[in-house]
Amino acid sequence: MEETKIILDEKEMPRQWYNINPDLPKPMDPYLSPQTMKPATPDELNVIFPMDLILQEVSQDRYIDIPDEILEIYSMYRPTPMFRAKRLEKALGTPAKIYYKYEGVSPAGSHKPNTAIAQAYYNKKAGIKRIATETGAGQWGSALAMACNLMGLECTVYMVKSSYDQKPYRHIMMETWGANVIPSPSNQTHAGQQMLAENPGHPGSLGAAISEAVEDAATHEGTNYSLGSVLGHVLMHQTVIGLETKKQFEKINEYPDVMYGCVGGGSSFGGVAFPFVVDKMNGKDLQLVAVEPSSCPTLTKGVYAYDYGDTAKTAPIAKMYTLGHDFVPAPIHAGGLRYHGDSPLVSLLHHEGIIDAISYKQLSVFDAALQFARTESIIPAPESAHAIRAAIDDALKCKETGEEKNIFFLLTGHGYFDLGAYEQYMSGKLEDDEYSERAEEEALAKLPQV
Amino acid sequence: MEETKIILDEKEMPRQWYNINPDLPKPMDPYLSPQTMKPATPDELNVIFPMDLILQEVSQDRYIDIPDEILEIYSMYRPTPMFRAKRLEKALGTPAKIYYKYEGVSPAGSHKPNTAIAQAYYNKKAGIKRIATETGAGQWGSALAMACNLMGLECTVYMVKSSYDQKPYRHIMMETWGANVIPSPSNQTHAGQQMLAENPGHPGSLGAAISEAVEDAATHEGTNYSLGSVLGHVLMHQTVIGLETKKQFEKINEYPDVMYGCVGGGSSFGGVAFPFVVDKMNGKDLQLVAVEPSSCPTLTKGVYAYDYGDTAKTAPIAKMYTLGHDFVPAPIHAGGLRYHGDSPLVSLLHHEGIIDAISYKQLSVFDAALQFARTESIIPAPESAHAIRAAIDDALKCKETGEEKNIFFLLTGHGYFDLGAYEQYMSGKLEDDEYSERAEEEALAKLPQV
Repeated sequence: MEETKIILDEKEMPRQWYNINPDLPKPMDPYLSPQTMKPATPDELNVIFPMDLILQEVSQDRYIDIPDEILEIYSMYRPTPMFRAKRLEKALGTPAKIYYKYEGVSPAGSHKPNTAIAQAYYNKKAGIKRIATETGAGQWGSALAMACNLMGLECTVYMVKSSYDQKPYRHIMMETWGANVIPSPSNQTHAGQQMLAENPGHPGSLGAAISEAVEDAATHEGTNYSLGSVLGHVLMHQTVIGLETKKQFEKINEYPDVMYGCVGGGSSFGGVAFPFVVDKMNGKDLQLVAVEPSSCPTLTKGVYAYDYGDTAKTAPIAKMYTLGHDFVPAPIHAGGLRYHGDSPLVSLLHHEGIIDAISYKQLSVFDAALQFARTESIIPAPESAHAIRAAIDDALKCKETGEEKNIFFLLTGHGYFDLGAYEQYMSGKLEDDEYSERAEEEALAKLPQV
Repeated sequence: MEETKIILDEKEMPRQWYNINPDLPKPMDPYLSPQTMKPATPDELNVIFPMDLILQEVSQDRYIDIPDEILEIYSMYRPTPMFRAKRLEKALGTPAKIYYKYEGVSPAGSHKPNTAIAQAYYNKKAGIKRIATETGAGQWGSALAMACNLMGLECTVYMVKSSYDQKPYRHIMMETWGANVIPSPSNQTHAGQQMLAENPGHPGSLGAAISEAVEDAATHEGTNYSLGSVLGHVLMHQTVIGLETKKQFEKINEYPDVMYGCVGGGSSFGGVAFPFVVDKMNGKDLQLVAVEPSSCPTLTKGVYAYDYGDTAKTAPIAKMYTLGHDFVPAPIHAGGLRYHGDSPLVSLLHHEGIIDAISYKQLSVFDAALQFARTESIIPAPESAHAIRAAIDDALKCKETGEEKNIFFLLTGHGYFDLGAYEQYMSGKLEDDEYSERAEEEALAKLPQV
């Protein structure tokens, strides 16, 4: 019997997060306050974030200890397994070896709890009673609902209205963990009221839901805001993925030649790639490739500039690849990748040429998802399937060249709540997404002048 | 950091199934042919089952080797983790220790693949091209669809129509794995046609869907039938659960005082309990408790007699606890537990006083499910939640007596596709199930005369 699963003992679970800040090729540009257009001070950020997380954001310590209480909850589902995709390799007839690490084993079904648990912990420690956040497809909202429930915090989730209606199971899941889920735009905030006044049938957007959650946190005593991606501390919490992946490759005496990960805000990709970045900067022959939807091609077609994180311009301004904070991507099913901007850390590394990026259209992504489900049995989330598409294409190239490459991709979560999209695809009803250069141009014209 | 997860290395995965036949306190009564009312011959059974499985059904070998091809697929998700439910213990304030083993980590989300993979393998080996089966809530159909896809077999699933409509994600999941899912009763079989002629709006039932699948297999060359529970070989394949559980308790130098498992057809319960039965027969102080829904109280209120396995009386007749093959239980959400009969092996052991049985009403089961989800984070399937209810009640008794007991229950699967039922429960719309003594009396009057 050949082994296809590479597992770690609980004792091998990382006890520290890896902080890439001290290893960056150049220092990060600071976040700016949307009020002053000057670097945001810790006190300004402290209105919606606990100080521990603000300090992590700017820390120059290469490793940061993971508190025991967080480790104990991580151990419910970590270390996560890495698999060799032998059945997929066989179906493709490739000489390449395909590996993937699966984060869908967490109770919330994705990698998101890695940071949700940490964020809930530090907020609890700071005396916070309630956390407000936004969610699109629902993976982040589910993870934070679960984490808040474990830490004894209240949780309010502003969920993009179109997703709320399309994926009822997601909000029921959050409610099962005790969260209060509000379709956004809502009447609960000024931002929401204004959007509804302009358009009573507003379907919602991630940028709009962020505005509501930030306002909720800023205007309620004892309430903080929590973001599921983009920020540095979020990516740092996700490095448990990459640190485990490194150990798993060491176990089998292998090293990846290329690593693919899907990118929306960039947290899962940063989490898996960052522990490998130093190797690459030290000369290791390794490709790190961010895979995004062609309908929201932030890294492949956006500009590297300061932009707002949300529609209402209340969140901090960040230097990042962006399509413009007003850009509304096509309603593809990979809702978790529909963000106009990207992690400032991933953006910087892309700008410096350390991280590559490619994009795929929706139909080719679902084609890969189905091929994966029918060989490896796990039904992938549409977001994760972007990385699968890239891995399959690379493996098919190896079939032509005969190269015996180690191809890795990160499987961020399962697609149990996305089966409606699978049905559309299988019945030929799913359409390919269109990307509007013009919409991007218009949105980019509205970048803040800094 | 205290360990709450007891995991096994892949090398510790069982390489053999445990066959309880040679250890039974008295021999099994044979299956009878519905045509002759005499013991079914291997040739009669071979019309719908492969010979390897028929031989397993009557084998007196205590251990049967698991073929490498099956082990390789098992290793995708096995060994499954066992957890100590410390957060639940704390919430209950009990001195008892609560352990549970979680089978929901399989790609199909339940324990069902343990036998689906084995059955698909032996059918493939016998040259079979297609398997027909039935499914109620969808867990079994999903598992067999996945297994057939892996073995390169076609799969036709007759799904109880009311479930097909209520849980669309389940049939999409099976279709994603390439299965053909047909709402039952259907026009594809004589049995289905007759049921529809009598009642065009027939909502379907497990007994009816079995009749359709058995007829499909019996009347198509190269097609066999596959059953997800009840039969001896099915329970034997599930003993990987109990064998692992034993090793996991050994790892922490503990032994359970009581083991709870939900029972529909009895396969998960048999799978976890049988490796412990010999210990109990040898004098070990251990309670083995089957937990069933009060609306389908086969073990607690049924009779121990020969009965048909399906509505159309085409499947073999078995000696078992039964409520009568015509008995239609209330439409509770734990669809996997709505079977009029029970595993002949579990029935025999219950009749001999080795296995105990209790029943619970639906609302108290969902109450336990929610308490579990809000402490341990995993959202349980309504079927599994029956065992949780029993474990919680026992732990609460320990709170009164101060007993530091080891309570174990089997968590057979997750409830991601049952969130509609959770929503009904949380919004107060779920009703308690009613049990009709009269319906049972009427159904029992129709037992076969043997």
